[in-house]
Amino acid sequence: MLASSALRHFRKSVTKTFPCSTCLAKQTFTSHATKCTAKEPDQPLIKTNVPGPRSEALKQELGTVQNSGSVVFFTDYDRSQGNYIADADGNLLLDLYMQIASMPLGYNHPRLIQTVKNAQNLALFVNRPALSCFPPLQWMIRLRNALLSMAPPGLNSVQTMACGACSVENCLKSMFMTYQRQMRGGKPPSQEELQSCLINEPPGCPNLTVVSFSNAFHGRTMGALSMTHAKWVHKLDNPQPIWPIAQFPRLQYPLDQFERENRAEEDRCLAMVEELIEKFNKLDRPVVGICVEPIQGEGGDNMASPYFFQSLQNITKKNRISLMFDEVQTGCGATGKMWAHEHFNLDEPPDLVSFSKKMLTGGFFFRDHLMPQEAGRIFNTWVGDPSKVILLEEVAKVIKEQDLLKQVNETGKYLISSLEEAQVKFDGLISRTRGLGTHVAIDFKDPTSRDHFIKEARNKGINLGGSGSQTLRFRPSLILEKKHVDIFMDVFYSVVKEMYD
Amino acid sequence: MLASSALRHFRKSVTKTFPCSTCLAKQTFTSHATKCTAKEPDQPLIKTNVPGPRSEALKQELGTVQNSGSVVFFTDYDRSQGNYIADADGNLLLDLYMQIASMPLGYNHPRLIQTVKNAQNLALFVNRPALSCFPPLQWMIRLRNALLSMAPPGLNSVQTMACGACSVENCLKSMFMTYQRQMRGGKPPSQEELQSCLINEPPGCPNLTVVSFSNAFHGRTMGALSMTHAKWVHKLDNPQPIWPIAQFPRLQYPLDQFERENRAEEDRCLAMVEELIEKFNKLDRPVVGICVEPIQGEGGDNMASPYFFQSLQNITKKNRISLMFDEVQTGCGATGKMWAHEHFNLDEPPDLVSFSKKMLTGGFFFRDHLMPQEAGRIFNTWVGDPSKVILLEEVAKVIKEQDLLKQVNETGKYLISSLEEAQVKFDGLISRTRGLGTHVAIDFKDPTSRDHFIKEARNKGINLGGSGSQTLRFRPSLILEKKHVDIFMDVFYSVVKEMYD
Repeated sequence: MLASSALRHFRKSVTKTFPCSTCLAKQTFTSHATKCTAKEPDQPLIKTNVPGPRSEALKQELGTVQNSGSVVFFTDYDRSQGNYIADADGNLLLDLYMQIASMPLGYNHPRLIQTVKNAQNLALFVNRPALSCFPPLQWMIRLRNALLSMAPPGLNSVQTMACGACSVENCLKSMFMTYQRQMRGGKPPSQEELQSCLINEPPGCPNLTVVSFSNAFHGRTMGALSMTHAKWVHKLDNPQPIWPIAQFPRLQYPLDQFERENRAEEDRCLAMVEELIEKFNKLDRPVVGICVEPIQGEGGDNMASPYFFQSLQNITKKNRISLMFDEVQTGCGATGKMWAHEHFNLDEPPDLVSFSKKMLTGGFFFRDHLMPQEAGRIFNTWVGDPSKVILLEEVAKVIKEQDLLKQVNETGKYLISSLEEAQVKFDGLISRTRGLGTHVAIDFKDPTSRDHFIKEARNKGINLGGSGSQTLRFRPSLILEKKHVDIFMDVFYSVVKEMYD
Repeated sequence: MLASSALRHFRKSVTKTFPCSTCLAKQTFTSHATKCTAKEPDQPLIKTNVPGPRSEALKQELGTVQNSGSVVFFTDYDRSQGNYIADADGNLLLDLYMQIASMPLGYNHPRLIQTVKNAQNLALFVNRPALSCFPPLQWMIRLRNALLSMAPPGLNSVQTMACGACSVENCLKSMFMTYQRQMRGGKPPSQEELQSCLINEPPGCPNLTVVSFSNAFHGRTMGALSMTHAKWVHKLDNPQPIWPIAQFPRLQYPLDQFERENRAEEDRCLAMVEELIEKFNKLDRPVVGICVEPIQGEGGDNMASPYFFQSLQNITKKNRISLMFDEVQTGCGATGKMWAHEHFNLDEPPDLVSFSKKMLTGGFFFRDHLMPQEAGRIFNTWVGDPSKVILLEEVAKVIKEQDLLKQVNETGKYLISSLEEAQVKFDGLISRTRGLGTHVAIDFKDPTSRDHFIKEARNKGINLGGSGSQTLRFRPSLILEKKHVDIFMDVFYSVVKEMYD
């Protein structure tokens, strides 16, 4: 394996010998953008429709113990490699969806394999601690090397969590607690507060609220779900608090042709945010913060300009409330910066940034004034899993060593320009090419066309997903290269041509 | 290691040779209750106060990036073994708390080490799937061997989740969805429902409620927290829905002396449940279910009789609503049965049973009528982690092969009788010895005494935790033996004597 992967390395003139940072093979030189995709095939290999008969049979079997309707195909994780996912029927697909945006380095990355095999890490894979009570010896070093080394500028505190929804829930709690602490002006909570909170009543459980946006997705636990407004399948039948919901801008594309209209649209939405804050404050249901995705990932890849987010921050500062970016889907480099909100040139760091997916562990970064003052308030049994943080530590190193953010930017630009070119050719069928880095999307004319495309592309060896009602979303890992874009575009043209004729 | 551990095996007359199911050493016979605790020390080893100076320094360092106030001590997971936890200062403690009840087989169990090292499992430690979309090839076999092999009688369906709170949240959602589906009588949801749910309003987000109990703990995300009523530290400052909260019985001990009083107390609480259901139904905030812990774990180890739980089930049947047992803390054998509610001889299986902690993965079992009808409604990116299910598969095998439930019962009886004996001697200081299996508790006369005991016991080599305001809770792993109880009781007497004099 090492020999054949070494052959694939891009080599330059020699200065000194050191091991390939990806596959650990000794070699003479690796450029900053070495593309080690050990064992990755040259192209997709399709033997059956996807899903094939074996996946279908397994799906039916799984359906006897849970609803298996969302299964795309059963996956052979042993045979998946780099940008390619292997299914139960012997098919190999180029994966531009990557477990719903959650594989930072593709499949079976040699460095992550080494991490799991490393005897020094064994105890943390075998023994899952209650991290807030009995943290492992090396925990602070792990936090530094993994999470804090990737922290957004200005955010020096971090709390791990198990998943995205829990991360959002605990951001909410941090905002509520901080707001109430400020309201108390340094006084301890009253006996009435301590008693009433146990029976869900004010003043202990006050009627605080958070502003979220139309088409937002922040997760599916009750607090996270209360800010999710993307699809009925997430929401229907579940009781939810009435919190202020502002509209998220609906921009027109291409951006340079609609500057005036888009600015007016963003101003309209910003005015709505201000009105809602005023309204809910007057209703004695004070707003403690604004929660927003830098790019709405589930609700249709909706974007807004830096101006919009800068203005949101101004609103939070004016009202002395928190600005929370939910970067569960956008974080960890997919947009070409480690955190998507770094594209917005904010005056100050945001107050909270939640993460999960590509970060392998859930959690959130937060500014110092949001630090809980009492032990046990941001807490649960596991609060994450150090074995995931160990893996993330290696991911952080590989991103840096291989300058993967640069690669994401280059590949992303190539993908966007390729799609923009296609968009002109298939006018009326596809539109609104947009994105940052390789976090890219394009719209089809209707949901049926989008769904048809995803199905046909899969049968031709490309795995992709949708967002919103008629959007195709690209969520590749950070190791995607231009050559993969070429393979995708071939399939794209072949499917779309058939649909366009 | 294998040689020395083999020496510790209890051996009987030989019939044939096979490998020790725990440490894999070839040996001639292992009894059904073989106690392989490879490398486990013979007794605690204490060099400093616990926490010692190194733990204190690390805690202070961690405090710069998050509130570290709940850290007990930093832990050396490499050196922890079996029932013993090793800390940063070279101390070895007998651990009767086991990461807040979450280690089924103690530390570094040889079989779990083998599982992580097994090359066939590697891909699932390296590549975490979006389980509901791209499940691994062997997923159904894993579910069968691990989760379904441990399922409560009558519950044939299972959904994995990442943690306990998520499991409770998704039980809530299952109850809400099922209730609404039944209300619709087979009709699909209306357009008004599909639209209104996106903005958190009825009829799409109806004002449904669930009955929970005083002193309950069900987790800390917003839905789970709405049913948690144990301590202010969980609740304060967080907005919460007004849902019906009934009182949980407060039994008097010893049980055989207070039969009449306890029955009256349980009847009082049951009447309250019925009144609340009627009241909330009339308020047009219909109750869809009752959520209860078989033993309240965080709120003070409060227990009720089988009669109480049978009556609760009768109430749910009469009202055609769901009965949910939250077995996050009580599940996986700690009470001497795989599930604590099996002690209650219910007429029918409960409708939902949530789990986490010792099960290593979160999730819930549910009856067939709670199966979601649409894909994607009980869903998130990861819905758990197959690497945890692989470990659980091995746990399930070890529990069965070594008849650990029998061991739990025997050790538990020994622990309870030892505590009852002590309770007579230290009347006024300790009382209310209670529990099932090794899921045992005892009360101190006040919070200060309980906290003092925990601190002093730790300094003498026993790690334990509290629950409620003045309860000491035992949450050992399933491999606890009578010899460990003896070691604990020696420390118990030595600390309590000093407090009593």
